[in-house]
Parts: sequence; C-alpha cells; structure tokens
Amino acid sequence: MHEVDVVVVGAGLAGLSAARRLVAAGRTVTVLEARDRVAGRTHGGFLGNGTPVELGGQWVGPTQDAVLGLIDELGLETFPSFDEGQYLTVLDGKVIPYTDESYGLPPRSAAEVARLWTELETRAATVAVEAPWETEGAEGLDRGTLDSWLVEHTEDDVARRFFRRIVPSLFSAETPELSLLHFLFYVKSGTSLTALMTTTGGAQESRVVGGTHRIAERMAAELGDRVRLNAVVRTVRQDESGVVVEYESDSVTARRAVTARHAVVAVPQTLAGRIRYVPPLPALRDGLTQQMPAGSVIKFQIGYDTPFWREEGLNGLVLSLDPGDAFDVVLDNSPQDASCGVLVGFFEGAHARRAGLLSAEERRQLVLSSLVKYFGPKAAHPFDVVELDWSAEEFTRGCYGGRLAAGAWTQYGAALSAPVGRIHWAGAETAAIWNGYMDGAVRSGHRAATEILDKPA
Amino acid sequence: MHEVDVVVVGAGLAGLSAARRLVAAGRTVTVLEARDRVAGRTHGGFLGNGTPVELGGQWVGPTQDAVLGLIDELGLETFPSFDEGQYLTVLDGKVIPYTDESYGLPPRSAAEVARLWTELETRAATVAVEAPWETEGAEGLDRGTLDSWLVEHTEDDVARRFFRRIVPSLFSAETPELSLLHFLFYVKSGTSLTALMTTTGGAQESRVVGGTHRIAERMAAELGDRVRLNAVVRTVRQDESGVVVEYESDSVTARRAVTARHAVVAVPQTLAGRIRYVPPLPALRDGLTQQMPAGSVIKFQIGYDTPFWREEGLNGLVLSLDPGDAFDVVLDNSPQDASCGVLVGFFEGAHARRAGLLSAEERRQLVLSSLVKYFGPKAAHPFDVVELDWSAEEFTRGCYGGRLAAGAWTQYGAALSAPVGRIHWAGAETAAIWNGYMDGAVRSGHRAATEILDKPA
Repeated sequence: MHEVDVVVVGAGLAGLSAARRLVAAGRTVTVLEARDRVAGRTHGGFLGNGTPVELGGQWVGPTQDAVLGLIDELGLETFPSFDEGQYLTVLDGKVIPYTDESYGLPPRSAAEVARLWTELETRAATVAVEAPWETEGAEGLDRGTLDSWLVEHTEDDVARRFFRRIVPSLFSAETPELSLLHFLFYVKSGTSLTALMTTTGGAQESRVVGGTHRIAERMAAELGDRVRLNAVVRTVRQDESGVVVEYESDSVTARRAVTARHAVVAVPQTLAGRIRYVPPLPALRDGLTQQMPAGSVIKFQIGYDTPFWREEGLNGLVLSLDPGDAFDVVLDNSPQDASCGVLVGFFEGAHARRAGLLSAEERRQLVLSSLVKYFGPKAAHPFDVVELDWSAEEFTRGCYGGRLAAGAWTQYGAALSAPVGRIHWAGAETAAIWNGYMDGAVRSGHRAATEILDKPA
Repeated sequence: MHEVDVVVVGAGLAGLSAARRLVAAGRTVTVLEARDRVAGRTHGGFLGNGTPVELGGQWVGPTQDAVLGLIDELGLETFPSFDEGQYLTVLDGKVIPYTDESYGLPPRSAAEVARLWTELETRAATVAVEAPWETEGAEGLDRGTLDSWLVEHTEDDVARRFFRRIVPSLFSAETPELSLLHFLFYVKSGTSLTALMTTTGGAQESRVVGGTHRIAERMAAELGDRVRLNAVVRTVRQDESGVVVEYESDSVTARRAVTARHAVVAVPQTLAGRIRYVPPLPALRDGLTQQMPAGSVIKFQIGYDTPFWREEGLNGLVLSLDPGDAFDVVLDNSPQDASCGVLVGFFEGAHARRAGLLSAEERRQLVLSSLVKYFGPKAAHPFDVVELDWSAEEFTRGCYGGRLAAGAWTQYGAALSAPVGRIHWAGAETAAIWNGYMDGAVRSGHRAATEILDKPA
C-alpha cells in the first residue's frame, strides 16, 4: 500500500498547482518542500517601513490566463503597475527621456533596433513551442547563439548594445549563453518580444495585492498538512509498483520517505538533476539537466519617502546601455496607494555574477550611484535597500529560469518534460506557454497533474 | 578528533593520485568511491576471446609526463599504437587513402583546412592555460562558439565539415557547444591541435600493457583498505574545525560518514554539483558546475580474427565526413602481438545522443555497416562487439570530460579549481596541462594534494 497517490517535490507555483488539481480530482497527495517556506521563486519581503515587496517574480499580464485564473480563484486581486510618464534610456552617460517606441535611441539606431526586432518577431512566429526541435530549420537556429546572430545581422553598435542589455533583462543571461532557437522559442512562448518587454498590455502589466507569494501561500493553506516543509528530497526510487521519495531534514537526523504511485518533480532542472534516481535516469534526460543552467540575478528593492520621480514626469522605468551601470533595468514598484516610493532594479547575467563577489555595502553603493545618475540627488537617500541574490539560494540556484545554449534544444529538448516511468516533470521551464513565467509554472503543474490523471488506474 | 587527515571523493586517476601523494607525505587518507570498482573513466573490459580492451581512456603520449611517470613508478609498461600504412578519409561516399597531411581531402579544401588549422594554433598559443579568462582578448574569444568562428572564417563546405567532425572526436561535443576560448584553451593545454590529433608523436602514441585501468588499480592496491567502494557521497559538511563527508551504500541502509581535516572532491564537475554542501557553496562555484556538461560518447571495440586491414596497407584509422556514418573516428586497437584484430570506434556528440536511443542490435548494425563501407566485406564478421555508453553511467554521466560553452570561462572559470574552505577540487577538467586527459587527471590530483600539504597544520 502506498501512503498517497502522488508525491510532489517542490512547493513552488508548479508543484502546488499540480497538487491542488490532483486533490480536486480526488487523489491523495503529499508535497515535499526543502525550504521552511512555500512559493519557490516568488517570495515576499518587507521594506523597513513595513511595505511588502516581492523578492522574486512579481508581474502578471494579459494572456497569462492560468495564473490570472488562479489568482481569481484564490480570492486575490491585481492592480496595474505604474506606467504614466516618460521612460528613460541611458546611453554614453546621457539620460534620455522618451515616450514613443524609439527607446530614446538616436534615430538611425532606433530604426535598426526596430528592423531587428521585427525580424526576430517574424522568426519567432515560426517556432513550434510544444516541440521547438521540430521547428522548420531548427538545426540551423540551434547552431548559433543569439549573440552570433546579432553580430551577423547588424553593424550598429548601439543596436547591439541594446539587445545585449534587454536579453539579460529577460533571461538573466547574456546573448552568447542562449541559442537563437531558445530565444525565439521564449519569445513565441510569451506571445511576442513586445509583450515580454511591455508594461501596460504586456508581461509587466499588473501586480498582485499583498505580493505574488500569496498565490502559493493560499494554495498551501488549502492543502494544509499535505505540505511538509524542511524536507530536502535526495533520492527518488521507482519500480513497477510505485515510487519512494526519500528526504532529509537538517532538524532531524533520520532519513524519511514517502511512498506513492507517481511523483511530480517540480523544481528547476538544475536541481532536478541533483536528486539521485534509482534506477538512474536515461542519458538524454540526465544530459538535459546538465545543460539547462539557471540565470543569475540579484534583485533590489529601494524604498524612498515618496515616488519623487513621478513629480518629474517619469514613470520610473530605466534601461541603461552604459557598461558601468550594473542595473539592467529599473522600474517603479511603489505600493498602490503611493504611500511611499519604491524602485525595483535588477543586476542580471554578468552584472549579477560580478556583483555577487562584492560586499553588500559595495553593491549598495553601485545601486545608489546608478540611481543618482538616472533620477538625480534625491535618489541618494533611500530609507531602505533590500536585496536577494537568487544564485546563492541553495534551493533555487538561479533565476529567472533555466535556458538552453547552442545545440541543446535539438539534441535534448525532447527530454525536458517527457515523463520517465512514474516520474513527471513540472516547473516554469518545462512550459510551452509563458515558459519561465509564473503563468508557465502554473500551466506546467496542471499539465503534470493531467498526465497522471490520464494514466490508467 | 578526525578519523583521517584527508577524505577523497572519487577513486579515478585524480582522486587516487591525490591520495597516493598525501599518503607519501605521511597524511592519513580515506578514499570514497561510488562504484564497485576504482578507475573512473578508465575501465577494463574483455572481448569474447579474452583479449583485454579499454572501455574508457586508453592512450598516452609525449609530454604527458605526469601519467607516464606514474605508469613507470607503478611498474607498468607502454607499447606503441599501430600506425603503419595508410589512413582513410570518407567523403561523399568515397573512401580515400592517404599518408600525408592532406587528410585525403580535395586540394583546395586541404589547403583551407591547413590555413584554419594554422590560425587556430596561432590563436591557441596566446591562451593563458592557468587562467584562460586572463588571456588577451578573452571576452571576445569567449563570446562566440567554435562553430560561429568556423562559419565566419571559411566558406569551404568540406573544411567546415572536417572541423565539425574532428571536434566531436576530441570533445564528444559539437562545435556550437563550446566557446572558441574553450577550444583554444584545450588545444594549448594539450600542446597543440597537431599533438591532440596525432598517433605517433601525439596524444594517441602509446598504450598501456594490460590496459590503462591498471594504473588506478595499482594505486588502489597500494592504498589498500584506505579505499572504500560502494560509497556514494551525498553530503559534504565543513566548519572551522574540519569536514564530514556523508555517504550511502545500496547494500546497507544506514548512512555513514568520514570526518577529516580536508576534502578532495575528484569527480566530474557535473557530479560534484550534485553533492549537497553544508554550508552551501558560493553562487559562482555552483554556477560553474551548472555550466560544465560532459560530452557524449559510446565507445565500441570490435574484435576480428586478424587485423585484416593491415594486409591491405591500412593502419586502421578512419575519419568519416559523411553524415550517415555514426562513427566519428575509428582506429586499430589490436593487441600488441596482433593475435587478433581489434578496431576501436567512437560515436560522439550528436551521434552518441541519437544512437543512445537505439537498441544495442540497431547500434551494432550501424557499426558494421560503417566498417564494411571503410574496410570491405571482411568487416561484416567480427567475433565480438563490445560497447559502453558513458552518458548512461550513473557515476560518470558523460565523457571524455566537461566543456565550457560561450561565456562560461570568463564568468565562471575562476571557480573551477579554487578551493572553497576545506574543500579542494580535482579531476581531469580542472587541469591546466592536458586538460581532459589521463595526464591532466593525475596532475590535478597532485595539485590538490599540494594545496593541502602547503596549508598550515
């Protein structure tokens, strides 16, 4: 006899969504979570004045129907991200306000960016998101990196710098670190590059009242004692009769185990690969987990007495193309009632890797010097700066998600979400739609649950 | 009190070399090995007639002084690889014998290959092998893949196909899967591209009597009960006083542990990353292990009654540029007394990944159809075919070694061999000289031992 029908590894949005759907279908479930909290790559924090801020994923937008539906079901609410006024682009020391689609770039570079943008959108539209390796010309698209495509397709230095900066803002990784196919897949998966890059009407359109971590917390509350925290899964065994998932806890010495008919492993691929599987996984599945490293990001929330930039007609969004600026992007993240001002900024990819070696005080100085450059001397005096380096988190090891470098999709892609016997895979990077986003995480959990529910009993 | 001075994880050439040197210096040592055998990526097997064959690493050559010295110290002997007669290149269905440096290619393509070869050698000579990220122009060399370099530097289709085939023969990975910097580093680390590609005078010059696994076996015999087999290390804990290495065995239920002053982790990076470290490793070190996937290779040994190809003036070496041929390279691997004929062949990179999904019988047919194409109908009747897919091995997960894709050396390279507190890293891919080779493995073990011996007691 098994203790439960399904054991789920990981209490992020994917694992909890799978568990919730399985329970709704009458299955018994246990969820094992390594941390002392649920919610994975969403995580709530507070500024010194008590203002809640997200230390992880925070935005939702149109067509993200899975997560929007879930928010609604759970009785949570959204509100629009602040998006009134001028955007800023920083180029060669100059801070350039704009409101049109030029990104504030010099006309010739703006035209070149628009041309490349259109070409990437056109190519992305051809990707088979459910099976990118079956896309027409997949092998050629997978052979090169996004960076080599850029070098080949434009001589415009500013246009190259623009794409080399917006790519880390989407992937927390640099243009050489992903194949052209992976970039195109991701764009198509999230509707379009415009959707990914846009606030109103795009992926940054809305925020969740009280913070996105409440989505996971409400699901966990529903699941009650089906969720076990501080349970670090080390081994997943399977045979013809079922699975045994062994875990350990730093608070108890003995190893413990859960037996079940099926398992859902709903953690980032690089962590899924660290679990021991008995019998061992097939070579291709193991190789996939070797080749899907997570991005690098340090997220900062900077609190001010007021959103003073709004008074100057700025909406808070900054994209800097200057190499000395560690921020890849900054946005207004003030609470809905604007009772204080909050900027959210990201060190991503190479910036995060370098800054991770500095002291917290050195990082704070980097943050403030950039913000003063963008917003003037008022930016020098926040009442609080909160940061989280997701690569240093033992049970995440990088955000926003895993990516595939040149050659990987066409050789390993088929192993990304295909079940191995009684083991099913979930997590934002296994999703075909909104891959890497909270919406993709929820969809992946539902997909894994459906796989199990569709199996003969 | 610690049980021993040093605990070594992994009884391959690196771990055993470290242990042997530490014991020689008077230190107490325990070596933990997950398998029921020592020798890691060297492994002895037999053909049906009792002829010993290597299922893993097998050749040594000039300037590999660390492994050659060790072979000598251990009382083992080498003998020359067979290298008399004509080489074969297969191109568009034609089997072309040659003995010069043309590789049997059409003159214009041969000249183009020679030009690219010289350019790569010249660039490789500038790499700082001890710290590739400090090479002049490292960022540019790391930004592109070897494949994008090829596309940019030659229009010659045959020349591209040539490099796209010899690269898997060296890395078990495809040209898009490694940065130009990694390729150049590897070439310089092994002296030169010519040295890597050459039998007499190069890396395939000599073989070890009885098989290379005897190197590890003799070291293990010296170390005696200091080596514990079937010990799967799962957790490495460290604090200011020492380390605790926890392991498990499928044959006993209880977890066991060894306490020591220092640890040497001497396993491939992708496996090093699967161990749990308490406290967790720094982000950069963890990221390195996420970004150093192992290559893919299935090695075949094919036994015939006689080395019949020798009678036809062939030395057995074949390089096929035809996409339908799964072999990347074939060589004569007959015993020294030529008492039977043995060919050794490799499915590498994409070929190995695809063939790994076939049945053993389907792979055998692929092997034989290629060998008949190269050597005629006599090749259709071997008395035995032995194969090993190294990616399917739970405690290796790929050969020949780990590689770094675009962007990784400059961002993560410094974490490759830098100790983390009491934990030291060894293994062929941590070596500056003969990286990825048996010689590099031995050097890495000696380097790790020296790091520990140089520490204040």
